[in-house]
Amino acid sequence: MKNESTAPAPQSDAAAEALSRFHAVIPAGGVGTRLWPLSRAAAPKFLHDLTGSGQTLIRATWDRLEPLAGAGMMVVTGQVHRDAVARQLPELGEDDFVLEPEPKDSAAAIGLAAAILSLRDPDTIMGSFAADQVISPLEDFQKVVEEAVVTAATGKIVTIGITPTHPATGFGYIRRGRSLRLQDAPHAFDVAAFVEKPDAKVAAQYVRSGKYLWNAGMFVAPVTLMLQHLEEHEPELHAGLMAIAQAWDTDRRQEVLAEVWPTLKKTAIDYAVAEPAAAAGDVAVVPGDFTWDDVGDFAAIARLNPVKDGSGITVIGDTPRVYSSEASGVVVTDSDRVIALIGIEDVVVVDTGDALLVTTTDRAQDVKKAVESLKAEGADDVL
Amino acid sequence: MKNESTAPAPQSDAAAEALSRFHAVIPAGGVGTRLWPLSRAAAPKFLHDLTGSGQTLIRATWDRLEPLAGAGMMVVTGQVHRDAVARQLPELGEDDFVLEPEPKDSAAAIGLAAAILSLRDPDTIMGSFAADQVISPLEDFQKVVEEAVVTAATGKIVTIGITPTHPATGFGYIRRGRSLRLQDAPHAFDVAAFVEKPDAKVAAQYVRSGKYLWNAGMFVAPVTLMLQHLEEHEPELHAGLMAIAQAWDTDRRQEVLAEVWPTLKKTAIDYAVAEPAAAAGDVAVVPGDFTWDDVGDFAAIARLNPVKDGSGITVIGDTPRVYSSEASGVVVTDSDRVIALIGIEDVVVVDTGDALLVTTTDRAQDVKKAVESLKAEGADDVL
Repeated sequence: MKNESTAPAPQSDAAAEALSRFHAVIPAGGVGTRLWPLSRAAAPKFLHDLTGSGQTLIRATWDRLEPLAGAGMMVVTGQVHRDAVARQLPELGEDDFVLEPEPKDSAAAIGLAAAILSLRDPDTIMGSFAADQVISPLEDFQKVVEEAVVTAATGKIVTIGITPTHPATGFGYIRRGRSLRLQDAPHAFDVAAFVEKPDAKVAAQYVRSGKYLWNAGMFVAPVTLMLQHLEEHEPELHAGLMAIAQAWDTDRRQEVLAEVWPTLKKTAIDYAVAEPAAAAGDVAVVPGDFTWDDVGDFAAIARLNPVKDGSGITVIGDTPRVYSSEASGVVVTDSDRVIALIGIEDVVVVDTGDALLVTTTDRAQDVKKAVESLKAEGADDVL
Repeated sequence: MKNESTAPAPQSDAAAEALSRFHAVIPAGGVGTRLWPLSRAAAPKFLHDLTGSGQTLIRATWDRLEPLAGAGMMVVTGQVHRDAVARQLPELGEDDFVLEPEPKDSAAAIGLAAAILSLRDPDTIMGSFAADQVISPLEDFQKVVEEAVVTAATGKIVTIGITPTHPATGFGYIRRGRSLRLQDAPHAFDVAAFVEKPDAKVAAQYVRSGKYLWNAGMFVAPVTLMLQHLEEHEPELHAGLMAIAQAWDTDRRQEVLAEVWPTLKKTAIDYAVAEPAAAAGDVAVVPGDFTWDDVGDFAAIARLNPVKDGSGITVIGDTPRVYSSEASGVVVTDSDRVIALIGIEDVVVVDTGDALLVTTTDRAQDVKKAVESLKAEGADDVL
């Protein structure tokens, strides 16, 4: 419990009680295609240090949550990442290390966590926090999570919505409704609606209104309430997950997992639980004013990392030897090659052993298309 | 003599006689700093295939000249390049393989060739042709060289001047004077003057006038006339070179070379011979209408190489795997890494084992400055 000292003292007895039932779940999936060739199937985004902090994103996610999670920590990831994740999180227990035989989207991943936790203790409040986000300051985040846990304890699925800093078109938004007027969670609101990624004009209206928050995919909820909505909207998926959960803490875990998992429906937790629950009035939101970034592309990496002493270039890498002249942008390298950039603005150079990407921060989103083209051309060895 | 079939039949008996005394000399020096990191101290420009022809520049230079050179071929290069040059030119005899212990500029390199050849046969006509130029078509070049050899046989130092295709500011120019009215060399003119690299306005005037030619550094001359001017203008250098030449075809070659070479003055053949000889009325020029490029930078490589099937990208490399989307420019690679270029115009990417360059064709000339900076920073391992 070396990080416990970083946990804030609970604001109230109610908060202390709710936090004691709080089990944090970290789904670690998603290759982060827009960060190719740094991030790829064998070394996805969450296994990288993208902020120069010295920590991988998954380790930083763990350290943010562990001090709050009175009931424990769980990670859900692909079997192929088992060893890499274990190296990052040596304290993660075998029973809380959920390894998916194949990707089945977020409803199955988070639903299985809910099912396992519910059978161990139906009073558990779970929180789901993706492994590949960058958040600061820590204290602000932890206060918001605490309010979310307190709010969840009143019988709500609680999303954490990020106060937008600009009219982003790459995120879904949450429209908040009325205050829930909770004594121990003064910033909790009803969710009026989840809305899809808007165009630029609509996004600007959202930001101006002050009523919209970015949907960062973070939520906190009683496991029983999660499973109730899942059962109602995806009964077969629910049944499959419960079957695996019943075998989980027995010697039949692998057998049942291998048998049932491949049969499960692929769907997002948003469709399977969050949106129907919002329509039923069961979803709340706590706004977060902390800085949040999902490090979606190399433009984000340029944004999140300081430029090296007057060079105009952000450098990410262990032993970089970067020379630049009238150049700006970001260089990510895992080699000690000399990299010389001359007269090129907002460039993105990602230098790995078997693949090199050169683009601009403006075109950072298009890396995904390039990866799709490479796949179509059979370049799977570098994807 | 496998390439003899590509030699044109001499135009006249006089031409045949002059060509029988013609010994072609290829000075292979110059790192080609603007082509770093492809070209570098250990692997200079002339050892690369920069046109996708399948031949290195020095091999192509040899093949252009060998059919004409009735008296033989000679190469002057650095001792460090001995093995690489020998692999390129297996037919080069030991006595015509002049290895400089250290670089001493062009007057020493070409002067030593002249001195050695003059002692073997004072009637020799030498021609000096840099190892790192790209020329086509072959037939046009060979006709011009033949005229130059015929003109040299009348007692002239004959430069080959390239008819300019645009007002280049990167070359010196030759102003031609009157026709020499030689029956067997109808295109030979007196040289009125050599002029330094002009600015853009002056260059445009030169091109408009029709009287100026690019100085490509190619010349043909009787060895005795070369040495006469060298002796007059650089007597110490001449004496040193003659001392080495006297030992050359003896068992004291290495001993004298090692003793004398380090003492020689560094100066360019232009200053030591060509310009004083022009002032004395001893220099002629034969214009060449062939395409000529000194492959001075990566913009030249982009210019000289066809773009790959509709991709917008020129690719130079053995096993390239280049993917591009809305990108143009040139990629030079000696690896089989995947290289992805997205949304970037006129880019130059040079991908080598220990160094990577990213710039634009517009900034291709600035590569030299980058190399100087790298040198100043102690990155000699990649230079």
